[in-house]
Amino acid sequence: MLMNAPRLQERMRKDGLDAVVATSPENVTYSSGFWCMSQWIRRGPQAYVVIPAENVGPACVIASSQVIDLIADQDVWVRDIRRYGLFVVDHTPGVTLDSCDRQIDAMLQAPDQGDALAALVKALQSYGLEGKKIGVDELGILPGLWDRLVAAMPTTTFVRCENVFRHARAIKTPEEVARLRKSAQIAEQSIVAAMAVARPGATEMDLARAFHNCTINEGGMPVLGCIGFGLRSAMANVQPSEHKLQNGEIIRFDVGGRYRHYRADIARNGFLGEPPAKVKQYHRAIRVGLEVCHELIKPGVKTADVFDKAVAAVQREGLSHYQRHHVGHGIGLDGYDAPDIAPSSKEVFEEGMVICAETPYYEMGFGGLQVEDTMVVTRDGVDSFMKTSAELRIV
Amino acid sequence: MLMNAPRLQERMRKDGLDAVVATSPENVTYSSGFWCMSQWIRRGPQAYVVIPAENVGPACVIASSQVIDLIADQDVWVRDIRRYGLFVVDHTPGVTLDSCDRQIDAMLQAPDQGDALAALVKALQSYGLEGKKIGVDELGILPGLWDRLVAAMPTTTFVRCENVFRHARAIKTPEEVARLRKSAQIAEQSIVAAMAVARPGATEMDLARAFHNCTINEGGMPVLGCIGFGLRSAMANVQPSEHKLQNGEIIRFDVGGRYRHYRADIARNGFLGEPPAKVKQYHRAIRVGLEVCHELIKPGVKTADVFDKAVAAVQREGLSHYQRHHVGHGIGLDGYDAPDIAPSSKEVFEEGMVICAETPYYEMGFGGLQVEDTMVVTRDGVDSFMKTSAELRIV
Repeated sequence: MLMNAPRLQERMRKDGLDAVVATSPENVTYSSGFWCMSQWIRRGPQAYVVIPAENVGPACVIASSQVIDLIADQDVWVRDIRRYGLFVVDHTPGVTLDSCDRQIDAMLQAPDQGDALAALVKALQSYGLEGKKIGVDELGILPGLWDRLVAAMPTTTFVRCENVFRHARAIKTPEEVARLRKSAQIAEQSIVAAMAVARPGATEMDLARAFHNCTINEGGMPVLGCIGFGLRSAMANVQPSEHKLQNGEIIRFDVGGRYRHYRADIARNGFLGEPPAKVKQYHRAIRVGLEVCHELIKPGVKTADVFDKAVAAVQREGLSHYQRHHVGHGIGLDGYDAPDIAPSSKEVFEEGMVICAETPYYEMGFGGLQVEDTMVVTRDGVDSFMKTSAELRIV
Repeated sequence: MLMNAPRLQERMRKDGLDAVVATSPENVTYSSGFWCMSQWIRRGPQAYVVIPAENVGPACVIASSQVIDLIADQDVWVRDIRRYGLFVVDHTPGVTLDSCDRQIDAMLQAPDQGDALAALVKALQSYGLEGKKIGVDELGILPGLWDRLVAAMPTTTFVRCENVFRHARAIKTPEEVARLRKSAQIAEQSIVAAMAVARPGATEMDLARAFHNCTINEGGMPVLGCIGFGLRSAMANVQPSEHKLQNGEIIRFDVGGRYRHYRADIARNGFLGEPPAKVKQYHRAIRVGLEVCHELIKPGVKTADVFDKAVAAVQREGLSHYQRHHVGHGIGLDGYDAPDIAPSSKEVFEEGMVICAETPYYEMGFGGLQVEDTMVVTRDGVDSFMKTSAELRIV
């Protein structure tokens, strides 16, 4: 299971919530295993998972009739599926259906609940939640539907609960750790594939194509592909262009796709030719900063302390004016899960968090250097997902 | 320019709106040219475009300091950029910056507005919009920020206006038509690439990899990749699996990526071996339905009439029990733009709409057949983007 159910339920108890409703693509997938394609690739399509408090009953999924085939074909652990809306699927007379089609057929036999909101209201009422306190993830439900929900159940207290899901998602389950490890390693491998085409005259787009093709061939899907050369590498979000690689240019990658819906976010640098002293010194400094993260992160340590010490190390090791607003973040279904490794953060590392630690440096007129590794927090430190070092790769 | 500014302004006048605020990734890109990566690949990051009524003033963009490098490096036609939040970028002393970096530098010199909502309030006030009627696209703004907005400007009327943008987006500008044409043709070409690896024993994943690799190599990014064989092709949203192609199996594609942010959505079918009469008859019937769309769509025609006639044609030509809830939709930055070619639709085709017409058929125990073409509505008919026919491709 992807969901950390005990952590979610514990937080629900603490917040006095009798149920929570997942509405965003990340939280629907997280709490049911259902990857609802339409809501992942568009804004607006509605799918929900209602998760009652432990003693109230099992969760249910609310989905459009148009997408329930995905439920039958995926590893969805929620069994109670409620559908809404018209969708026509025929059925060859006299043919025995396979188990997947039987499941689709059974879901289509269930009554059409009309629309997403009507189905949600009916589901909440079926659990006896009228008059109770319900958290609704505010990231996916359309504002007009939120208003209808409140109007339909006037004695019920509705509160926003995206933060409850974010809290639960911070500590990964073993299945999540496995997917995140694979996702990170696909990104690393794709950097190697991209560096293999780096030569004088190769464009940022050439490297980007090699990067994304490798991600696809390894079973991933492209998402983040910031690849920039030379002065362009100083742009944090640089998008690949037709700029041609020249001698003396930095190559900066800040990249990562998805593997089975879980994100990757890795950074590495290359250099065409013999790097000048400044590049070597700065790159060494940010690598030391990243090493400090590897060394210091363990359960019980404050993220703000790791921030302070990583920044101090970069400053001490040769980049004395180094400043940052964070040196890393959690990762999961979202590219930025909790915690933030930031000075204002009150968070503490816990076992099972998956962390992207990074020490980027951007200087206009010079370029950008960035190293970023992904690791899981273990009982007494971290287990890095990386198979390659963060060293500057000379072309 | 991507935006159909006259159509947006006309609708704003009709709705009595003194300004509209784009907040979703689609509408921010549409109304400024700014592809704000963080909001495209995540839910939550805030970027806005404020578009005042014609006589009030030029539009402005509100963006995080972390993403303004993208504005400098893209073709963003809005000149007034207001940033919020901390982001550290250094600047090599004594080095003259190139024009892109100079623009970033200038934006970073402008005052930090604090956070997205504070920047939005300040911007609306700077246009003298306090007490006026303002539309806010409800798809991207966080609900908590909407509440803060209403509280900060209590004499101002705020209404949801996603439908205003959707209305404007329905009639494409020449730049949009060009991108959509290319996007559709990349999808077609990628189907050809995928069919080239179709042989006995090839998996759905093999075809999907070939499809997405081609999309990337042609300058696109993968999005939609429903590729299913045999009985699995009856699942409307089928996701590629390790199922191996066998003799006598249908291959169904419902696929399309993005090209310069504009979506594609194309459907085609293949067959391994000699198709039985039922497959040939049904495929011919749905092709005739699609041809009816090509023939009937022109300015002034009701979409509901095209729906009726396309469905009737499929029924008459050999699929007598054919039923559908729509036979097509608009396409643009979103996979489903206006109009819907649906029985309940009150919409009328207009010149400049870009349409995906489709006649899918799903039968459990048999398979799925689907043909879908993309076309732009011209003065007296349609101009198809397709370079390949929708014929059943025999492997």
